[in-house]
Amino acid sequence: MKISKNLIIMGLFGLATLATAQNKEPNQTKGLAVFEKKGKFQPYEFARHAVGDNDIHIEILYAGICHSDLHHVHADWGKEEFPMVPGHEIVGRVVKTGKGVTKFKIGDYAGIGCMIGSCRTCEACKHDHEQYCEKGAIMTYHGIDRYNNNEHTQGGYSKDYVVAEDFAIKIPADAQIEKVAPLLCAGITTYSPIMFAGVTKGDNVGIAGFGGLGHMGVKYAVALGADVTVFDITEDKRQDAMRMGAKRYVNVNNPEDLKDLSNSFSFILNTIPANYDINMYLKMLKYDGQLGIVGLPAFANMPSISLDKFIWQGNRKIFGSQIGGIRETQEMLNYSVKNNIYPEVKIINADGSLVDEAYQNVLDGKVKFRYVIDMKTLK
Amino acid sequence: MKISKNLIIMGLFGLATLATAQNKEPNQTKGLAVFEKKGKFQPYEFARHAVGDNDIHIEILYAGICHSDLHHVHADWGKEEFPMVPGHEIVGRVVKTGKGVTKFKIGDYAGIGCMIGSCRTCEACKHDHEQYCEKGAIMTYHGIDRYNNNEHTQGGYSKDYVVAEDFAIKIPADAQIEKVAPLLCAGITTYSPIMFAGVTKGDNVGIAGFGGLGHMGVKYAVALGADVTVFDITEDKRQDAMRMGAKRYVNVNNPEDLKDLSNSFSFILNTIPANYDINMYLKMLKYDGQLGIVGLPAFANMPSISLDKFIWQGNRKIFGSQIGGIRETQEMLNYSVKNNIYPEVKIINADGSLVDEAYQNVLDGKVKFRYVIDMKTLK
Repeated sequence: MKISKNLIIMGLFGLATLATAQNKEPNQTKGLAVFEKKGKFQPYEFARHAVGDNDIHIEILYAGICHSDLHHVHADWGKEEFPMVPGHEIVGRVVKTGKGVTKFKIGDYAGIGCMIGSCRTCEACKHDHEQYCEKGAIMTYHGIDRYNNNEHTQGGYSKDYVVAEDFAIKIPADAQIEKVAPLLCAGITTYSPIMFAGVTKGDNVGIAGFGGLGHMGVKYAVALGADVTVFDITEDKRQDAMRMGAKRYVNVNNPEDLKDLSNSFSFILNTIPANYDINMYLKMLKYDGQLGIVGLPAFANMPSISLDKFIWQGNRKIFGSQIGGIRETQEMLNYSVKNNIYPEVKIINADGSLVDEAYQNVLDGKVKFRYVIDMKTLK
Repeated sequence: MKISKNLIIMGLFGLATLATAQNKEPNQTKGLAVFEKKGKFQPYEFARHAVGDNDIHIEILYAGICHSDLHHVHADWGKEEFPMVPGHEIVGRVVKTGKGVTKFKIGDYAGIGCMIGSCRTCEACKHDHEQYCEKGAIMTYHGIDRYNNNEHTQGGYSKDYVVAEDFAIKIPADAQIEKVAPLLCAGITTYSPIMFAGVTKGDNVGIAGFGGLGHMGVKYAVALGADVTVFDITEDKRQDAMRMGAKRYVNVNNPEDLKDLSNSFSFILNTIPANYDINMYLKMLKYDGQLGIVGLPAFANMPSISLDKFIWQGNRKIFGSQIGGIRETQEMLNYSVKNNIYPEVKIINADGSLVDEAYQNVLDGKVKFRYVIDMKTLK
């Protein structure tokens, strides 16, 4: 039997149309949103796009509260769109898979971090650094998803997420699932620069800012065998640092603590989300030492450094780091679960007023160390 | 014959006293000095300290004019002492050696760069990074020599220098001696960060600022097999860059020239001594790329960078670099002579008005590429 080429094309077109039609149903969901800058959290109903061939539909179990969620809600980094459902530390269970999906099956745990798409073709994407996509990585919330009708993305303080499988992270079945969500941002954001800096056994490593990110940095650096010094501005966390394996705790408000630290660190990871004296940390680096910056304060309070400081303390390097690529996020997740490295979490119910209260505590530095919202409790 | 221990000690003491006495004569010399901030150069007579046991006395043949000499004469980097004899690119012939000297003999060529002393015992000194001496490296001029009666050091625009042999560089007898002086600052200041950054064959390297330092940077990077792009603000030097082996010349005042340079360099060496947009160069670095800063503008025009820029262009490193240690300066000198790498120099007589004129040309970016003063012509 001879079938014309055109007929095949028409047939394929028909199938494609059918598949598209099947997937065209958007998924109604609900979450917690703020409706204006610095607003209170309230219930919000909205739709996720339909599950495409290479997408998975995740029923969200837990969502972490990251300090950067506060920055977005407060519009600290520029104009924002409201209503906004924050949340880019997401873990859940796969409830539906597109027909092209190979990495996940229904019932698997899956995680989503800060980004849910990128061009996949630029040099950055080709080298597994999707966070630096030359066309722009698509953020999990406060983003515009140019591959899904330019929809305005909404985050993980919600019941569901639909995401391309390539941007979802596999979570082993034996993971402590209620603690996994913060790994997807706080975990990778500290793991990546620590690995990039080449931290290894016996290195003298500083972790500045001992909050959600910082305490993960301490755990990774300790796991790698580094001698870890923690810097923060309170006495309240001194014992926690030692308990997590730090060798030294520096309250930077205490001049005595700061003695004898010049030229001594091979790496300092700076997670501070407020203004601070970057030059003080530069001076603590030994020759060939590195200072990694992951904390991003509000624009109005952004520290800066004049170039002469680099010359006076020469042959020391500063670099910034944005989360990590998808390949490395999976690597971090596997490493964390295997080595039993988890954030210390305080789990709260998905109630607007509890999230408001959590935000205030994060702002006041009162959380030890990460709030996680149990999204199953959302009414 | 039995000689008592005390007698030996007394005898040695007597010899030491004699040697000290022999060396106690200060060395009268003359040079060209400015007597006030932004002053004109005029003849100046002064004394070098006596030649100590481990010192050599150098009769200066040539002294380079470095852009930083202008910054000091203009007091761009803070208060200065006058009269000031600038000059830290010095080459000459050894005319006297202390009795403990082993590295030099009378008649050898010797060079002096930016520093003439350090504590020799701190971690930095022990690792051959005397420029970062924790007690402070002693500058060749505008310094206080704490190991020689706290004398105020005067530089190389003069007939003589007395220096500890450990801080003098051996110059091979077959070197092109009239071109060697600028290697002692412009040479090492570019060689050191290029080596520190690990530049190697095939790397895409940028050299920003194509003056005395920049043109040396181009020569070293080309010699290492890198593909070199030169950045400057004039068309006047385009052909020079290509002649020295650059692959591309970017006039940063020409937007067309700046196209397609994002994320493309593994290393950029920034030698610009004026204000500029550091973030523009940061954006040109590829993942894991490095930006080395050696140009130090006047404090009033110091560029700075806010920390968010490091995050947006993450996993790119900035470091500063100060000259290089003595061991590395000797390595650079040997490498340069062996590979026939010299600055392009314009030799002028040691006449105050000619030096004044040279300063104006350096300020206007009109020199190709380094003025060298023939100190033998000083009257």
